[in-house]
Amino acid sequence: MRHFYSLNEFTSDEIERFLQRALYFKSRPYLNILAQKQFALLFLDPSLRTRCSFEVAVRQLGGGVTTLEGQALWKIETELGTRMDRDKAEHVREAMGVLSRYFDGLGLRAFARGERKQEDLLDETFSAFMESAKIPVFNMESAVYHPCQAMADLLTIRELLESFKGRKITIVWATHPRPLAMAVPNSILLGTTLVGMDVTLAHPPGFELQEGILAMARDFAKRSGGKLRVVSGREEAARDAEVVYAKAWGGLGRYDDPQREAELRLANSHWIVDTSFMDLTRRAYFMHCLPVRRNVVVSDAVIDSKQSVIFRQAENRLHAQKAILEWIYA
Amino acid sequence: MRHFYSLNEFTSDEIERFLQRALYFKSRPYLNILAQKQFALLFLDPSLRTRCSFEVAVRQLGGGVTTLEGQALWKIETELGTRMDRDKAEHVREAMGVLSRYFDGLGLRAFARGERKQEDLLDETFSAFMESAKIPVFNMESAVYHPCQAMADLLTIRELLESFKGRKITIVWATHPRPLAMAVPNSILLGTTLVGMDVTLAHPPGFELQEGILAMARDFAKRSGGKLRVVSGREEAARDAEVVYAKAWGGLGRYDDPQREAELRLANSHWIVDTSFMDLTRRAYFMHCLPVRRNVVVSDAVIDSKQSVIFRQAENRLHAQKAILEWIYA
Amino acid sequence: MRHFYSLNEFTSDEIERFLQRALYFKSRPYLNILAQKQFALLFLDPSLRTRCSFEVAVRQLGGGVTTLEGQALWKIETELGTRMDRDKAEHVREAMGVLSRYFDGLGLRAFARGERKQEDLLDETFSAFMESAKIPVFNMESAVYHPCQAMADLLTIRELLESFKGRKITIVWATHPRPLAMAVPNSILLGTTLVGMDVTLAHPPGFELQEGILAMARDFAKRSGGKLRVVSGREEAARDAEVVYAKAWGGLGRYDDPQREAELRLANSHWIVDTSFMDLTRRAYFMHCLPVRRNVVVSDAVIDSKQSVIFRQAENRLHAQKAILEWIYA
Repeated sequence: MRHFYSLNEFTSDEIERFLQRALYFKSRPYLNILAQKQFALLFLDPSLRTRCSFEVAVRQLGGGVTTLEGQALWKIETELGTRMDRDKAEHVREAMGVLSRYFDGLGLRAFARGERKQEDLLDETFSAFMESAKIPVFNMESAVYHPCQAMADLLTIRELLESFKGRKITIVWATHPRPLAMAVPNSILLGTTLVGMDVTLAHPPGFELQEGILAMARDFAKRSGGKLRVVSGREEAARDAEVVYAKAWGGLGRYDDPQREAELRLANSHWIVDTSFMDLTRRAYFMHCLPVRRNVVVSDAVIDSKQSVIFRQAENRLHAQKAILEWIYA
Repeated sequence: MRHFYSLNEFTSDEIERFLQRALYFKSRPYLNILAQKQFALLFLDPSLRTRCSFEVAVRQLGGGVTTLEGQALWKIETELGTRMDRDKAEHVREAMGVLSRYFDGLGLRAFARGERKQEDLLDETFSAFMESAKIPVFNMESAVYHPCQAMADLLTIRELLESFKGRKITIVWATHPRPLAMAVPNSILLGTTLVGMDVTLAHPPGFELQEGILAMARDFAKRSGGKLRVVSGREEAARDAEVVYAKAWGGLGRYDDPQREAELRLANSHWIVDTSFMDLTRRAYFMHCLPVRRNVVVSDAVIDSKQSVIFRQAENRLHAQKAILEWIYA
Repeated sequence: MRHFYSLNEFTSDEIERFLQRALYFKSRPYLNILAQKQFALLFLDPSLRTRCSFEVAVRQLGGGVTTLEGQALWKIETELGTRMDRDKAEHVREAMGVLSRYFDGLGLRAFARGERKQEDLLDETFSAFMESAKIPVFNMESAVYHPCQAMADLLTIRELLESFKGRKITIVWATHPRPLAMAVPNSILLGTTLVGMDVTLAHPPGFELQEGILAMARDFAKRSGGKLRVVSGREEAARDAEVVYAKAWGGLGRYDDPQREAELRLANSHWIVDTSFMDLTRRAYFMHCLPVRRNVVVSDAVIDSKQSVIFRQAENRLHAQKAILEWIYA
């Protein structure tokens, strides 16, 4: 039995094999490889793309699927040794132990909660659920990782550029009314360094990713023959990019001083991907994982341009996830 | 690619063909015509009949179905050019663009919101969603139309009376604690005039339907050889009817002076379909789209009588909707 | 057409046949006996195990399933003769009449509401829904009964002890922050006396089950050659038990004096199943229907021990419910 938790566990050859399988599934939407398999999709946080693409993926592959949204669950205790006499009616051990008896696999979404830094940076909620499961769990976005998104993004880049080695991608921070989690930037950073791209990560001071992820990405770049540089200037970031990947996220400072983090985030509202930004690139493709705030993260002109490949990315979720489901049972 | 938005787009011959197909589906519930098709049902407003009848219809025809209720979606922006820095996290262009990549068709429900008259009378919300879709959209009730209900209602009348031309139906307003939308009366009025029935529309002053719908219905009656008269007397309305179609709706005055509209609506609480009303008819059938407020819109004695055909109407939703799904892909 | 409402309607021979069929389904998860059948699962109260096990059961048997949670429904009126001019938008007669036209069977959950004693003890809400249905209804937990749970529990005991006659089970009350309903203790009490077990029911004064259930259980024990004794001492309850079935429930006093009931319930917090309790038994198995409050109802050491069979119980829900679905259409 194996879980699908993050891209870090794979070599670039293994990633390549996932992409080949995803392309195969893209050419043949209906294949009966999950017949007589039942899946639960458990969303502790909201979802549109992930829910729809997984439901369709499972049905197209012949399986059955039950979607459980947050309010469908009893409130779940994840600590051990607690006297459960308050609002939490069920322990994660029982909840996951029971689901393991009904289903053959389980997708889980558990965002960063933004309360305890340690809990979020160590992915404690997701891990508590995963460790209590007796069936394969696949990550539909945890506090730290969104590997299904990253796999779909790599598939998209591969389709557009036809190669990874030395190709230039810029992952660029954007402002946002709320301090979003880092699962997406973490995952695309790790994915692109893993396959040997020339990666620029750009954000204003105060929006550094967590150190462990950066260290892993540097190591990946070294081993894959790729590059990683981190810059704090927007113009420097845009120059020569072949792909611009925009994403808003909140600063790690939010755990200690949320008011200052919010001020800093909103003060950087000029970090929007607009035509002037795109004009500095090498006619780059524009990517975003969605949902996106128009005219906050990206201008209408850019997102509606021919260089925008956001729907291709979203569609590729479906094909990439089929490759992931196949891998779990291979 | 074609949407199914309202009955107005069809000729009476085309309606006739829908009804024939619906009768065929009624005799053969399981037919594999939607194999390898995936559908989303998107409810911005609550539903029981529509959701259940569409889910069963899709499954009985071999397709797959995902139901998305309001809270499953991110809050959706429908305006263009807005800076999305408030509560709305996704634009309708992205939401519908993405769903178009996963599904083969999408049902949409978006009631009148009762805030801006223009928005409701022009069906702006529904239209914004429909225009952003790249796949067929079918109307599961918009602010202005409920064509699936009207199609099921015509099927019911056809089964009971065996013909439409010159047959007498009375669409009669009823009071209600809330100012309901006009999608149902609009649709049954257009449907029955389209097929040539002798239609009486009855309501107290202040509850006129919107002018564009009335004009279209008058035109339909003229072309089909039917009749349309609008009356404000209950006795006059009941006399000689073969079908009584009851429905509560709010007055258009509610946009400008909601308090006065409410007073007027509640002052007309004698507009209930009871035994004394039915006794004036030609042993008419009683119809209602449901849900219905007992002893407000219709008395227990009438709704529980043999002349009440409400469950036949509800069941016919299933068969009519199969004919609509078939038409979309024909 | 037949409903599945409680175990009381069956003889011990009939229960035996259910258990044999459940064991058969346990050995063959996929069987196409519900092809071309559509089911609705209607939850007026929350659910995890019941929802998942029924969804999987229906799909594994080839049927289609629609899950309706409380908020999916309009607010339902169950009284007859009311003028429905308040918050309830649909009458149970129409709601169930309509669902009866779309589905071949309907599961219903309606917990005790804890407001009117009469309503709960007579299962009035569940009965109102069941009586309005024109299709088979199966009980997914009403105010008084949880027969699917009891059937799964009997299956579990049968697997572990290999016989029922004279085998010793202790149903033991536990404290809880909320006054839970009695459907589970009622059902396991009736089920075990029906099959001839030697049953001890243990609770502190003030937590008596309703008299009608106790009388029925005494009658079952007499006819089956089993035994029933009711005790108020924990040590007496534990001694020689082969199975310990723990469950929290609120006292009937809560309808008249909720504050006193809460005081009494919380004052008995030493009624927890812990190692010292289990040490008095004959190496008993530990059972609980879940969800369970750890270290309130049962200690970590007991629930995590080898004698704990809670996951087997939960899994057996799936197999038992298949036998129930089969019976409905046999």
